[in-house]
Amino acid sequence: MAIVSLTTDFGNQDGYVGTMKGVMVAIAPDINMVDITHEIKPQSVRETAYVLWTALPYFPEDAVHLVVVDPGVGTSRHAIASKTAWGILVGPDNGVFSYVWKQAPPELTVALENPAYQRPVVSGTFHGRDIFSPAAAHIAAGVPLREFGPEVSLPVRLPAPGMTVEGDRILGEVLYVDRFGNVITSIGRLVWEGSLLHLDPVFAQVASQTLNAKRVRVVVGGHNLGPILKTYGQTSLGDRLALVGSEGMLEVAINQGSAAGVLSLSPGDPVEVILS
Amino acid sequence: MAIVSLTTDFGNQDGYVGTMKGVMVAIAPDINMVDITHEIKPQSVRETAYVLWTALPYFPEDAVHLVVVDPGVGTSRHAIASKTAWGILVGPDNGVFSYVWKQAPPELTVALENPAYQRPVVSGTFHGRDIFSPAAAHIAAGVPLREFGPEVSLPVRLPAPGMTVEGDRILGEVLYVDRFGNVITSIGRLVWEGSLLHLDPVFAQVASQTLNAKRVRVVVGGHNLGPILKTYGQTSLGDRLALVGSEGMLEVAINQGSAAGVLSLSPGDPVEVILS
Amino acid sequence: MAIVSLTTDFGNQDGYVGTMKGVMVAIAPDINMVDITHEIKPQSVRETAYVLWTALPYFPEDAVHLVVVDPGVGTSRHAIASKTAWGILVGPDNGVFSYVWKQAPPELTVALENPAYQRPVVSGTFHGRDIFSPAAAHIAAGVPLREFGPEVSLPVRLPAPGMTVEGDRILGEVLYVDRFGNVITSIGRLVWEGSLLHLDPVFAQVASQTLNAKRVRVVVGGHNLGPILKTYGQTSLGDRLALVGSEGMLEVAINQGSAAGVLSLSPGDPVEVILS
Repeated sequence: MAIVSLTTDFGNQDGYVGTMKGVMVAIAPDINMVDITHEIKPQSVRETAYVLWTALPYFPEDAVHLVVVDPGVGTSRHAIASKTAWGILVGPDNGVFSYVWKQAPPELTVALENPAYQRPVVSGTFHGRDIFSPAAAHIAAGVPLREFGPEVSLPVRLPAPGMTVEGDRILGEVLYVDRFGNVITSIGRLVWEGSLLHLDPVFAQVASQTLNAKRVRVVVGGHNLGPILKTYGQTSLGDRLALVGSEGMLEVAINQGSAAGVLSLSPGDPVEVILS
Repeated sequence: MAIVSLTTDFGNQDGYVGTMKGVMVAIAPDINMVDITHEIKPQSVRETAYVLWTALPYFPEDAVHLVVVDPGVGTSRHAIASKTAWGILVGPDNGVFSYVWKQAPPELTVALENPAYQRPVVSGTFHGRDIFSPAAAHIAAGVPLREFGPEVSLPVRLPAPGMTVEGDRILGEVLYVDRFGNVITSIGRLVWEGSLLHLDPVFAQVASQTLNAKRVRVVVGGHNLGPILKTYGQTSLGDRLALVGSEGMLEVAINQGSAAGVLSLSPGDPVEVILS
Repeated sequence: MAIVSLTTDFGNQDGYVGTMKGVMVAIAPDINMVDITHEIKPQSVRETAYVLWTALPYFPEDAVHLVVVDPGVGTSRHAIASKTAWGILVGPDNGVFSYVWKQAPPELTVALENPAYQRPVVSGTFHGRDIFSPAAAHIAAGVPLREFGPEVSLPVRLPAPGMTVEGDRILGEVLYVDRFGNVITSIGRLVWEGSLLHLDPVFAQVASQTLNAKRVRVVVGGHNLGPILKTYGQTSLGDRLALVGSEGMLEVAINQGSAAGVLSLSPGDPVEVILS
């Protein structure tokens, strides 16, 4: 079965997501549709870029990823499909694929302009139903990308999440707060190997470094979190901790509590790692 | 694969929806189940009727649509299945299918009374699990409707959403507020053709008219929204606008904001279109 | 198609559930994945145990049930898979399967230790992605349980929900509050046969008794609810009632209202059934 994932800011309350799935199964009844999330903060392109970057590498390489977070619907922004090593991406050309493309560069990106693969009537406000879903289903059914329209050579890209090194400090920001109140920062990708913590340059665009966890101190929103730990198991209930999250990013958490709530943190707040 | 859509007011928090899906895959493991929504306002038959009307035309014609919004569970209301051009509808006989039937009239409606297609024990409170889900799965697996029980000749129907014409005014009401705070009204179905806006009589039961957008003024909750636009792209961030929504209904929105919040609008509030 | 159900406390907002599904379809693209819920109260093992107990008996016997409610991730708790008459259970060894095992005892339980069936790198915080999802997909694809690791002879079990008989009183507690505000208690399993209400000893561990509904009075949080009814249909809009819920547990409800809200009830509050 062909796999089509869905990521939107439509929420789970209205009928919009169900409508898009109806469009897709009417074209390709045998696709296996997988929801990534429909609770992206309304029109947050940056949050979408982050969530896709965390989830897509785990899907099969031939999966189709339908993304509809589209504040520019009805303007002249392109609708695109982009072939990458992490699957074929379908969505608006507004930067939602920026972080994925950093690790899985676009091999071919086309504009979705061929009306043969759109709904007969295209509304001004719901391209998810009228352009993106039909495209995703037809791609899953085997239609080659070049059938959909002309190549787009310079799709829109967001800057990578901020992370800079100043002397003995690594400076970043809060990137995302999840349902548990875990605070994911822009400092990464961090990889533990034995007792050593490496800083991976791929995502962060800084020189690779080895951090010795014992020498490191994490400061966020004025709170000193101490060294970087490996797991929650090294702490007790209610303890604050800094750790390497499941994506290799520096994360701030409270053992069975909400770090974002207790420490009053939200996206954009500064984070420092101090080497001493 | 056979398609079964699900629409309920069960929410996504409890195990009720998962239980119904378990019942269905135990009968027909290969069905492709598609959630329309489980966040219908508890026991809101009217909201259900609206959401089904927006989503069902996009599904394949042979899809089965399972609907469990059932304030009368345990009373003498019928459980029904109804064949239409928009698929086979399965749910309580309380009006949830009214708006669908306006455009896709019931060809055959039966009462779900045959115990061979129910759970061995039928509870007094969860017919979704014990009657509706088994019926939907057996229908998806090919059991003919007449096997389930006797024909129901006059299923319950709600009145269509209010919309009347008085001189140079079209009067309606707020029908639905979506997650973005977009306000969908009962005035429609409106269709742009070139620069002309047509009023389609099918849903609204008024004489068809052509509206010239420039001559029209939309008033809702005392707020003058001006003419009817074609897309968000004709406005700037934060602007209020009246536009034709993706279903052809008059919609009130704020570019990247919540019209329902800012203008304090909720279902039932009056809407006027003034032709001058 | 093989069935894999999912039950987590990850919520529907983040990309965690989608990531786990990506891992599974990369291993077994043809599985039919069924969400039970992802809105378990964060880290609530007891609520998970209850929800699984209500939903799993309705699935096919060969279904795989993936459960990730895992406050002990990163500690020494086992990751397990357990074969039962209600399907193969996959999750942390922290008691989440306790209530299921009461009716469907573990036939074989193994520790998920074989790295061949884990992600190449196992994080300290997301075993759902790195251990549990790959295991569930490989089991669904036919890998025998003994391949995953050594047998676990005494998996962790929670005590059953409290229910005791003292003279002419049955004492229990509020077990769960659902989205509608219905209050499910630990008194059960109750089964109506004609006009007689039976108390089933399997779940409650008390001697079986026959209750005559007319002689019974339900008291919860100081509120006298009167006898136990069979359906909502025996009451009017807004009435309080005690009834036998769809799982055979004593339930407190308000006809089209929220009993938990109006009567201020939450899990742990005492419930009494008085026989007189």
